[in-house]
Amino acid sequence: MSIIKLRVPGSTSNLGSGFDTLGLAVDLHLIVRFESLRGGFEIHARGEGAETILKLEQNLIVIAFDRLCRELHAERPPLRIDIENRLPLKRGFGSSGAAIIAGLVAANLFFEQKFSAMELLEMACEMEHHPENVSASLLGGLTVNGLENGRLQCTRFVPPSEWVAACFVPELEIATHTARALLPENIPHRDAVQNTQRVATLVAAFAKREPSLLRFGVQDFLHQPYRKALVPGFEKICAAADRAGAYASFLSGSGSTILAICPSQRGKKISTAMAQAAARFDLFGKTMVLKFAREGVDRVMRKRRG
Amino acid sequence: MSIIKLRVPGSTSNLGSGFDTLGLAVDLHLIVRFESLRGGFEIHARGEGAETILKLEQNLIVIAFDRLCRELHAERPPLRIDIENRLPLKRGFGSSGAAIIAGLVAANLFFEQKFSAMELLEMACEMEHHPENVSASLLGGLTVNGLENGRLQCTRFVPPSEWVAACFVPELEIATHTARALLPENIPHRDAVQNTQRVATLVAAFAKREPSLLRFGVQDFLHQPYRKALVPGFEKICAAADRAGAYASFLSGSGSTILAICPSQRGKKISTAMAQAAARFDLFGKTMVLKFAREGVDRVMRKRRG
Repeated sequence: MSIIKLRVPGSTSNLGSGFDTLGLAVDLHLIVRFESLRGGFEIHARGEGAETILKLEQNLIVIAFDRLCRELHAERPPLRIDIENRLPLKRGFGSSGAAIIAGLVAANLFFEQKFSAMELLEMACEMEHHPENVSASLLGGLTVNGLENGRLQCTRFVPPSEWVAACFVPELEIATHTARALLPENIPHRDAVQNTQRVATLVAAFAKREPSLLRFGVQDFLHQPYRKALVPGFEKICAAADRAGAYASFLSGSGSTILAICPSQRGKKISTAMAQAAARFDLFGKTMVLKFAREGVDRVMRKRRG
Repeated sequence: MSIIKLRVPGSTSNLGSGFDTLGLAVDLHLIVRFESLRGGFEIHARGEGAETILKLEQNLIVIAFDRLCRELHAERPPLRIDIENRLPLKRGFGSSGAAIIAGLVAANLFFEQKFSAMELLEMACEMEHHPENVSASLLGGLTVNGLENGRLQCTRFVPPSEWVAACFVPELEIATHTARALLPENIPHRDAVQNTQRVATLVAAFAKREPSLLRFGVQDFLHQPYRKALVPGFEKICAAADRAGAYASFLSGSGSTILAICPSQRGKKISTAMAQAAARFDLFGKTMVLKFAREGVDRVMRKRRG
């Protein structure tokens, strides 16, 4: 009999030019407690999107747990799962990536850690189809990711602790697959070159902890130009953040949140400025100022005599 | 009366995925001595491509020198220029970028350094149309570059001293403009995303001094797939370098040189392996093993009483 408690950070991703490449863990968590039972299965949820989470066929924690069981040709043990979710759903905080990581890590702990972190990440990528949120949730910090024939390449940087995320979270859900459908088949070669210059500079900004490189670094030619129509006033909201002193601002994941990296003392002012700019487009929502999470999933396991 | 002596490193560029973005200075130099005269103009050249260099209308050192004079509404002073060039022309070692830097830096010294390094680089970019070779020649190390409305964004990393460049330099000239003409107008969005993942990883490899990230990092979707026909056996030559222990290999600039980053003790073996693979395609040339240049242009100025 065991109890496992996981705290999985959510994540922002893309960061403008780093489409399908960069993930950055935030200090906002999905907390899941797994308790093995003598028999049966129970699931409880509270917090953000609890009703949606309780629809089992959509519950990625359970789906991921089962995925790992299948890999080991094992049955899911009788379980009670208690979920406390603080990640807004469909707002660009990587809630699905965090759920997948929770399920895989928990199952791996139940089955004596048969899989390495890299193997878990590759399973997670297969489920999520893109690597950046799952790696940020598992490892923390800024993750730089790539896939080659299903094999993951991932490395990470710890972001400066004085950088925070000022967020405007609209009352607007955007499903990742909807946002992906807006991307074109082909783009100008020139756009790809410009994006290459920006993402290289963006990685350098984190590696050198140099905020003056962020504004240029986040400029994006791969997804925001095609997605911005999903968030009314997107460019004006970013401009308001920049005027209020943000280092750089962008669509968090595929939205709807707009996130600005900024020094901590300006977080409140910047998120308020974004909300005010959004209101002019009849777009309302809440503001948050989040630290970045330097650590990934936090695990506590307790064995009891059964 | 003054004498200025400059040692300008050449550079490799692109490094696979970093098309028009990454430059990396090499320990092979263009050496130019400028001596002010009482009257007249003299130019002397020896070394690689001396005959071409002496064609004044093509001499980028003089053209760049004059460009800076024009900027100051000044006349070029009477000069004797002695050039010793060690950079093979049209082989992907940034000889034109080095020449532009030599001319601009020398003129700036003659005119009491009116321009900052950044201003010189922007003039150089305007002449060269891409930023990565000129910034590597001026600043040394690995430069990460971008342009936005003619404004340059540039930051740099010092490469690990234990990494060297094993080179195969074919008897084959490739003009950059010929190689550019092969690039398509449009590319698949998917290729741009894959390139984004690779270049982000490549910058991380230099930032973290982690050679295991280089092989994935150099994979390129923007130029080598379209240019490789210019160098017979290109992929086989790279594969031979990789088999002989290179961290990663790619077309240096727009070619024709193929360059492999590797640990210093394997440089000779790898460059020989590349030459042997090339010979099977009737492609012959010379091999070199070069250190990377951590420093950019080296200036010595001596004033004499006129």
